Amino acid sequence: MPRSPSELALQIADGNRRALARGITLVESTRADHREEAAALLTAVMARTGAAVRVGISGAPGSGKSTLIQALGMALLDAGHRVAVLAIDPSSPRGGGSILGDKTRMDELTRHPNAFVRPSPTGGTLGGVARRTREAMLLCEAAGFDVVLIETVGVGQSEVTVEGMVDCFVLLLAPGGGDDLQGIKRGIMELADIVAVNKVDGALAAVAETTARDYEHALQLIRPKTAAWRPVVVPTSALERRGIDELWATVLAHREALGATTLAQRRGDQARAWMWGELSEALLDRVRRDPAAAALMRELEPEVAAGLVPPPTAAQRILDAFGS
Amino acid sequence: MPRSPSELALQIADGNRRALARGITLVESTRADHREEAAALLTAVMARTGAAVRVGISGAPGSGKSTLIQALGMALLDAGHRVAVLAIDPSSPRGGGSILGDKTRMDELTRHPNAFVRPSPTGGTLGGVARRTREAMLLCEAAGFDVVLIETVGVGQSEVTVEGMVDCFVLLLAPGGGDDLQGIKRGIMELADIVAVNKVDGALAAVAETTARDYEHALQLIRPKTAAWRPVVVPTSALERRGIDELWATVLAHREALGATTLAQRRGDQARAWMWGELSEALLDRVRRDPAAAALMRELEPEVAAGLVPPPTAAQRILDAFGS
Repeated sequence: MPRSPSELALQIADGNRRALARGITLVESTRADHREEAAALLTAVMARTGAAVRVGISGAPGSGKSTLIQALGMALLDAGHRVAVLAIDPSSPRGGGSILGDKTRMDELTRHPNAFVRPSPTGGTLGGVARRTREAMLLCEAAGFDVVLIETVGVGQSEVTVEGMVDCFVLLLAPGGGDDLQGIKRGIMELADIVAVNKVDGALAAVAETTARDYEHALQLIRPKTAAWRPVVVPTSALERRGIDELWATVLAHREALGATTLAQRRGDQARAWMWGELSEALLDRVRRDPAAAALMRELEPEVAAGLVPPPTAAQRILDAFGS
Repeated sequence: MPRSPSELALQIADGNRRALARGITLVESTRADHREEAAALLTAVMARTGAAVRVGISGAPGSGKSTLIQALGMALLDAGHRVAVLAIDPSSPRGGGSILGDKTRMDELTRHPNAFVRPSPTGGTLGGVARRTREAMLLCEAAGFDVVLIETVGVGQSEVTVEGMVDCFVLLLAPGGGDDLQGIKRGIMELADIVAVNKVDGALAAVAETTARDYEHALQLIRPKTAAWRPVVVPTSALERRGIDELWATVLAHREALGATTLAQRRGDQARAWMWGELSEALLDRVRRDPAAAALMRELEPEVAAGLVPPPTAAQRILDAFGS
């Protein structure tokens, strides 16, 4: 890292893409000195963050997620927006894995001067990957991107994480019945502000219509996240670029329905939860790095799992060993 | 508390009900010396715990929860079981609140020599209430109760908590459509191993049948918690005591389907999560009680919520203040 965090912050604020990429590489690093520089960088850009529309987009493999994001991204660019696309894929140990790893699937978007596409940070826990993506989102906002799309795979916990960092969470579904319909983990549908049923085109059009109706019915059985908005189903064809404007109009309608106060509150809650999560994780890390506490942990955890030691007793003993 | 924890443990193991009640009062106390005695008591009884079938039963007010639990409890007592009923209601600040507060709603069960009914611990956070209920469950098992039913209201987070301490989670629904159907919080249906549609009696019978079919359909859209078991809908009439044997048979079928290994693993995961939760909470408590860290927390939290300070930076600063 040749530049100081404050220099880098200025270049990012100028919209320098190479500086943005370098900043993201910095926040992705786990080296202790890099973490300190990353903290300084974030603090320096913080006042310029928060202005983007933050949208999470999740969908199982095969739902046409990349095609949809490219179609949505191009439509937004045509309308004059600056679009950043980030990804969270904790399943990929290295190299970007299954999502955004191959940027060629979004080549049109990737080549556009007003777009910025970044694959998932690699390795580490979901918590670690999520933190780095949250920080990358702030840097993209500081660089003037007014739409941030966060992509994730439809496999469970990562959806909860993404929903916890965006203003609007879109669940993308492929048409189909039976097992295909069950391709999303339990609880994910409940997170959706918008359900997009994709591939309403060609041979699948009729099936897609049925899928859309099924999910409209299913959404009726779910209590909405807020009284201000009832989740809606939007049929799309990413391939034929139909329903894309409607999808974005629905994102904006959701935003309008929430209102500025509720949105600010949602973001405030997200930021506070992020802080508490960091604090809690850092404290547990300290305990894990403490030789006496760590040894006791290794000894007690199997006994706790086997029902031989009461969990609160084990926690207290570990805490005592840590404190001493 | 006149007796030592080890004496109390012996009396509880003898099936002494007054000792059990006293033990639960001890684990419910937040006094520091009581917490120590409670830890000693739990350690003393631990070897005698784990043999019960642990079932969580949740339902919104009006679903007929108390009537169902009484009907199920009486059927189990008739079959020779010893049945403990505990409750979790974090919404009740004192006096038991809306569930089990009025034991007369379960008077038949309460009077039975082989049953033990205990209202929700009062006051405190959900985490605190949950810990005390987990500990009470262990004491009930040590006292020889071979079925523990844990009741909770259908209002959200408490369901997640109860699902995290039982072998089988039953969601109880009243018949009805529209808004009534939405009386459960999002995500709760996904937790259910069994959905019981109650009040399949009198004028509501036809509506109940429709409700049962609706939920059978909705459950098809949800990926099951384990490949070994797909959640099923059981129609019941607690009032006319119909469907009660079928409900219990389904609890046992679920147990059989999971198998001993998966069940032991589920319990092991629950115990480990309990330990980590206790440890994490105790560590955060230490930080909150540290004057310098607490002052910084109060200062930084609103700035974090307002998007002025990056959450990781705030967490690091609080941690530094705590460490110094």
